[in-house]
Amino acid sequence: METVDLILHSASQLCVVPGGDMPQRGTALGDLGIIEDGALAVHNGRIIATGTTGEITSQYTATRFINGNGRCVIPGFVDPHTHLPWAGDRAEEFEQRIAGATYMEIMAAGGGIMSTVRRTRQATIEELVAANLPRLRRMLAYGTTSAETKTGYGLNTEAELKQLETIMALNQVQPVELTPTFLPAHAVPAEYAGQTEAYVEKVITEMLPAGAAWMKKNGITLFCDVFCEEGVFDLHQTRRILETAVSLGYRLKLHADEFAGLGGTKLAVELGAVSADHLVKTPDTDILALGEGNTIAVSLPGTPFGLGHHEYTPAQKILTAGGALALATDCNPGTCWCESMQMVIALACRYLRLTPAQALVAATRNAACAIGRGHEIGSLEPGKQADILILDVPDYRHLGYRFGTNLVKTVIKKGHVVIEQSETL
Amino acid sequence: METVDLILHSASQLCVVPGGDMPQRGTALGDLGIIEDGALAVHNGRIIATGTTGEITSQYTATRFINGNGRCVIPGFVDPHTHLPWAGDRAEEFEQRIAGATYMEIMAAGGGIMSTVRRTRQATIEELVAANLPRLRRMLAYGTTSAETKTGYGLNTEAELKQLETIMALNQVQPVELTPTFLPAHAVPAEYAGQTEAYVEKVITEMLPAGAAWMKKNGITLFCDVFCEEGVFDLHQTRRILETAVSLGYRLKLHADEFAGLGGTKLAVELGAVSADHLVKTPDTDILALGEGNTIAVSLPGTPFGLGHHEYTPAQKILTAGGALALATDCNPGTCWCESMQMVIALACRYLRLTPAQALVAATRNAACAIGRGHEIGSLEPGKQADILILDVPDYRHLGYRFGTNLVKTVIKKGHVVIEQSETL
Repeated sequence: METVDLILHSASQLCVVPGGDMPQRGTALGDLGIIEDGALAVHNGRIIATGTTGEITSQYTATRFINGNGRCVIPGFVDPHTHLPWAGDRAEEFEQRIAGATYMEIMAAGGGIMSTVRRTRQATIEELVAANLPRLRRMLAYGTTSAETKTGYGLNTEAELKQLETIMALNQVQPVELTPTFLPAHAVPAEYAGQTEAYVEKVITEMLPAGAAWMKKNGITLFCDVFCEEGVFDLHQTRRILETAVSLGYRLKLHADEFAGLGGTKLAVELGAVSADHLVKTPDTDILALGEGNTIAVSLPGTPFGLGHHEYTPAQKILTAGGALALATDCNPGTCWCESMQMVIALACRYLRLTPAQALVAATRNAACAIGRGHEIGSLEPGKQADILILDVPDYRHLGYRFGTNLVKTVIKKGHVVIEQSETL
Repeated sequence: METVDLILHSASQLCVVPGGDMPQRGTALGDLGIIEDGALAVHNGRIIATGTTGEITSQYTATRFINGNGRCVIPGFVDPHTHLPWAGDRAEEFEQRIAGATYMEIMAAGGGIMSTVRRTRQATIEELVAANLPRLRRMLAYGTTSAETKTGYGLNTEAELKQLETIMALNQVQPVELTPTFLPAHAVPAEYAGQTEAYVEKVITEMLPAGAAWMKKNGITLFCDVFCEEGVFDLHQTRRILETAVSLGYRLKLHADEFAGLGGTKLAVELGAVSADHLVKTPDTDILALGEGNTIAVSLPGTPFGLGHHEYTPAQKILTAGGALALATDCNPGTCWCESMQMVIALACRYLRLTPAQALVAATRNAACAIGRGHEIGSLEPGKQADILILDVPDYRHLGYRFGTNLVKTVIKKGHVVIEQSETL
């Protein structure tokens, strides 16, 4: 009998979320691979076997046992689109929006994202780490074990690199694994107001090369992302930035179709981007492109909700077209300050009409694929990293059904218990 | 210098929410009475003084000090409409609704509320207490220090009284103070299908008198409530039940205008009901009645959200008419399993267009008035019960702005710390 580090057993439902390193596509989305009275064996931070409690305990013994006690066990959530790290908050802007100002109006008036840029530029790496640790702790407590995080509140070379260094530092001091994205083309900074072309030139000739040098020095491949949107970067500018990024060795992501459908999604597919994100106003032709290509559609329903809008990602069309759909929080201080993937699942069930099973796959396996880590995380298959949640409910369908609170009882990261909620939640 | 039990000091904002025992009405809603660098003194479970930290600490000393450390301090939330206690869950029904079935369709097919009635009838008081304690603990952890709870899953005399006894038992064993409502007219039970009039007769001649006897025995005044809705109890049946209830000494509440505007709100005002709840399809004439009467409009935005609907309480019209508006969760296993008043505030800011200040008053002072306890709870005025929340944020406007997680750090009930969130939330 083989001795392993950890056996987790007696789960009412062990949701494996099968599929190797590929996303679940189209209407096949929603295969949870449930093992009733499930168990898994963990060694050296990886899952080495799954099965029924009887199967696992007859083959393995362990130095530590965790009794699932009839609770549902799922993979750790992967959040493939957040805007951590940032400094400050915009609570007053939220009040203005209730009074009727739109996001684009606030941005045009120099508010909105520019106030976060000012605060982030002023902060030291140490201050940014301190400000963002509680946000990551909150993400972890709500079950997110890996996340994508971005630059884009620096908007000059020095401050963008400072955000990258902050992400690296945050990766060292807390358990949520962070995948960094370089987003100097998040907005046109105030000092380039009215000179978008000049800023694009600076992104292409100065900032992307600086990020590429940073990649080389750190041995990390960054994603490069652009906010392709009316009044921000148009389709042609987006293409120039992304094509330069490819030539410099970046992988691609894209903010597309949040407020207007400019063709960004089709461009993302054409350029082989790993994901295209937001996708609210996506034209039908772009939806068809998602069905044919390998780019993953990342829906961020917290953002329309955060803004009080009623239009969401046309998820059913994307699934019908055969696209791969993932979910993310978009956690940011302007439009959507929400760290909880459970909240995103609750929104997706209601406004994207995803079943809880589909939403769960979109928040784990497919989300992992959306940050290029489908081979390592996002499922409970043998060989994957042991990132595991024990929910305080017996059935995965409580996700989405119940909303506004935290249903995660235990968070296991790389085989170690990193959160154990007391009865006080 | 007077010695008190507790001084809470150095709050960035102490939100007093002034107004004595009256709700804040109409467009005057939203007065928080903020004291910056605020403090309060507590003795024998009551607030005896509020002021700046300098003012309070120069007049009082205490056996216990709590340093607010620049955090925002608000009254404990009051949740004036929940459906605790119940047995079981309806997670599978949630999946059916995503597939397109409506609430009324599920109910017409004998599912929906009837499955909860079956489970609740089968449960013992001890089983009901055990099942509902975690729900109350969750409410408390998210800041609810007092709540209204109802019968209505018994639908026969014995099971309705069992629910009342369960509420009494729950009041003894955990800190959230529960105000009981008698709701035998929540639905027509299966054994009376197609015989609504006969069931109304039973409610009037048997169940309401049994509840009245229970009131006399226990020295408690119950609210009586009716689900006035198309396909449930019509306006005439509702009037007969409520008029009987008044004659038996009950105070009144009413479920009105959730799916159809039948005139229930106007009836509630006419009969002097303490509150009329739901109010989605409320006709303009009924809104005007709210402005002229003393009945409080209790909006339950978690329910349209839970159902994925896009129509909410016409809150701005109610405020323009001079009405008093409160917020509640409607926490129940069918349409809205949400224990968090913070989630309700987030919904109200977006879909009722309430500012965070208005939503906060609606969730504290006005909610207390909606269960007839405005003289005791819902504000931090001297004389009130010391039910206090310390938020983990410096500004009340983070409520609503941030959503899906818990911003409450410390819950104080009657002067005692009952929840202290660790950094793991």
